[in-house]
Amino acid sequence: MIWILFVIFLLACFAAGTTGAIFPPGPWYRDLSKPSWTPPDWLFPVAWTTLYICMAAAAARVAVTDQAGLPMALWALQIALNALWTPVFFGLKQIKAGMAVLGALWLSVAATMVALWQVDALSGALFLPYLAWVSVAGALNGAVWRLNPDAANNPPAMAR
Amino acid sequence: MIWILFVIFLLACFAAGTTGAIFPPGPWYRDLSKPSWTPPDWLFPVAWTTLYICMAAAAARVAVTDQAGLPMALWALQIALNALWTPVFFGLKQIKAGMAVLGALWLSVAATMVALWQVDALSGALFLPYLAWVSVAGALNGAVWRLNPDAANNPPAMAR
Repeated sequence: MIWILFVIFLLACFAAGTTGAIFPPGPWYRDLSKPSWTPPDWLFPVAWTTLYICMAAAAARVAVTDQAGLPMALWALQIALNALWTPVFFGLKQIKAGMAVLGALWLSVAATMVALWQVDALSGALFLPYLAWVSVAGALNGAVWRLNPDAANNPPAMAR
Repeated sequence: MIWILFVIFLLACFAAGTTGAIFPPGPWYRDLSKPSWTPPDWLFPVAWTTLYICMAAAAARVAVTDQAGLPMALWALQIALNALWTPVFFGLKQIKAGMAVLGALWLSVAATMVALWQVDALSGALFLPYLAWVSVAGALNGAVWRLNPDAANNPPAMAR
């Protein structure tokens, strides 16, 4: 792992995470019914910061190998989908489209983990907490959909 | 270049571009003063689709080499920043923060181009149109800021 690569991948993670910072949970989300196991709001930035470090370390370890092609392509795909979810869910307030993005994100994270693992087991393992967290986020998005059918079917119009 | 890598990088581009599709220019943007050289609205999706193909081809060519590390890390950073601009500018209607994101995007695209070029000249050249387009986008963002100081200083509140 080269430190400059770790820093660049970490910057990519935080650039993606900035979409989360600019569309924070507001009254719309607070008023939705949520399952009893919903993680507290404060846990999300803590979890994401930890995950970003793991994701960047995994990428930096594999980037310097001569088998970086497939894991790097998949890593780029998952970070783009990661950046997309918050604007869809919290920006557009589209619960159903958010579920579709999360499904695509889950698949891309799982594929990235497998591709990393084939090159370097530790890098693959560093993606396990991320896959677990995206699974929780998917379950939460799905539960919010189920518990709030009106909000899911009639997202509020966005100010243009 | 391996085709599966090209397809994965292209999917990453379109995932980033989806933020553009979900925050299209609306009445707020239409009513802003724009410079005379503003490209017509229809050109943007055409230009981006062309650029995505060039960007994915450049990444796929370099990904299979044994010097992929730095260009792949920078490619991931630029695609995350690319996904971020539209939610900031068209989602939050933050002209000044949009300018900051575009500046970071321009730097990351330029760095990616140089890193690609050092591995494969054609891949670097495939990033030239992208850098040119981001330069135009930056000039446009800057001109909109200058021509609409009130809108830049007082972005409309977002519905939460």
